[in-house]
Amino acid sequence: MHVFERPVRFADVDATGVVFFPTFFAYCSEALEQLLLLVIRDGYAEVVLQRKIGLPTVRIAGDFTSPLRFGDTARIAIQTEHIGTRSFTLRYSVTRASDGLPVAELRGTVATIDLLSTRPIHIPEDIRSVLEQHRS
Amino acid sequence: MHVFERPVRFADVDATGVVFFPTFFAYCSEALEQLLLLVIRDGYAEVVLQRKIGLPTVRIAGDFTSPLRFGDTARIAIQTEHIGTRSFTLRYSVTRASDGLPVAELRGTVATIDLLSTRPIHIPEDIRSVLEQHRS
Amino acid sequence: MHVFERPVRFADVDATGVVFFPTFFAYCSEALEQLLLLVIRDGYAEVVLQRKIGLPTVRIAGDFTSPLRFGDTARIAIQTEHIGTRSFTLRYSVTRASDGLPVAELRGTVATIDLLSTRPIHIPEDIRSVLEQHRS
Amino acid sequence: MHVFERPVRFADVDATGVVFFPTFFAYCSEALEQLLLLVIRDGYAEVVLQRKIGLPTVRIAGDFTSPLRFGDTARIAIQTEHIGTRSFTLRYSVTRASDGLPVAELRGTVATIDLLSTRPIHIPEDIRSVLEQHRS
Repeated sequence: MHVFERPVRFADVDATGVVFFPTFFAYCSEALEQLLLLVIRDGYAEVVLQRKIGLPTVRIAGDFTSPLRFGDTARIAIQTEHIGTRSFTLRYSVTRASDGLPVAELRGTVATIDLLSTRPIHIPEDIRSVLEQHRS
Repeated sequence: MHVFERPVRFADVDATGVVFFPTFFAYCSEALEQLLLLVIRDGYAEVVLQRKIGLPTVRIAGDFTSPLRFGDTARIAIQTEHIGTRSFTLRYSVTRASDGLPVAELRGTVATIDLLSTRPIHIPEDIRSVLEQHRS
Repeated sequence: MHVFERPVRFADVDATGVVFFPTFFAYCSEALEQLLLLVIRDGYAEVVLQRKIGLPTVRIAGDFTSPLRFGDTARIAIQTEHIGTRSFTLRYSVTRASDGLPVAELRGTVATIDLLSTRPIHIPEDIRSVLEQHRS
Repeated sequence: MHVFERPVRFADVDATGVVFFPTFFAYCSEALEQLLLLVIRDGYAEVVLQRKIGLPTVRIAGDFTSPLRFGDTARIAIQTEHIGTRSFTLRYSVTRASDGLPVAELRGTVATIDLLSTRPIHIPEDIRSVLEQHRS
């Protein structure tokens, strides 16, 4: 499990004053960027720009239980739920950092693709290793 | 079924040149805003600001099959899958407008809440009626 | 002068309930996309993806006089203030559509560049013509 | 001068692969949030939510000289240029962290307002003090 904390930004909220739900997926994407930095020097940018590998999300599921507001900090615990050949599934538990209030449980399946051909490829070894290290 | 078309904007893409997946949920939110305008004069803004009713998404699920790029137009077909007492579930079929390529199938469950108490309330009658009219 | 109307979206506001000021520049960018569509079949996407021409904003200035909220519609009047050899300056007057309340006066200078070399190029003729037609 | 570093995120770029210019103003807003945290325990959120004070940007100017891409980190040096009675002006020098390449020079004038009446108020003392400490 890797834990990432991220304050709610001034503009992350919607007209009801709470974080607009798609923004949580952006937070999760930042958590994944953090995870990759643990094993890849320049992280996701290196994967995309130098290796020409993409990590598109192909399936998503989630429940939102409590809202976050400006002034709150999201605590995102990311762990690997499944590792396949050409895709993997991550689980994100989002809580409010100040008191542990459950905010969202999200699950995303990410494919590994060759950005030039847009075809699936085997999960690169370094990405696989960091996923193994963070299995639930 | 209500159909909404939305061009991909210049800034909707990510570093791999395709629409960043959370942005599809923003498109779906715009489609829901369109749906509400069919029965409520000032639409979602009236619901939120005048009636103090919120429509938070509490559950989401989806599959992303093909990417969209700048220059594409998303065609979002929205239909009601389930109407409960204090929540309803919508289904969004996203295709590429130019050729019907399937892009994403998304499902979102939306609660109706009193924004002041943040407690669930019965689905207002006008919202229920537009949902009934767009059942799958 | 070309006029573009754009409702404030549910998520365009910040924690004080008004449109976050950088979002106005995104609205202006949409207005520019509209302007290009008047003379170029596939608009800005064609310019970027097929002609490999970029239109980066190199200078910006603006005053914000009144806020917009969810439920408001921005009315953006775009006109050409100056046409140079390799750049042009646009002026955007933003008002609230319902009553004409002045919201913002923005000015942006846009360069025309070759995206491959990233060097300035002469303004293409079709872009120059639509700019001429919308001089203040 | 206060310095804030911020990696370019996966979704911060536009269809030409560089940071979309309005996003730089969002980075500057984050830098201002950082500055306020130096003197106010809960920072901007405390100012907005507890004191009901808003800090709307009322004037902006800027030059963009070089683009940033995914994989770059923005280094934002923020300093106070002018302190008035009910507004202040900040200057943001944005460079690429890896090599100091000049990216943008931005200037923003921020008003202090009572969020309930939306009228200008005197700059609160703690905000004034942190502005004084970071004069150019």
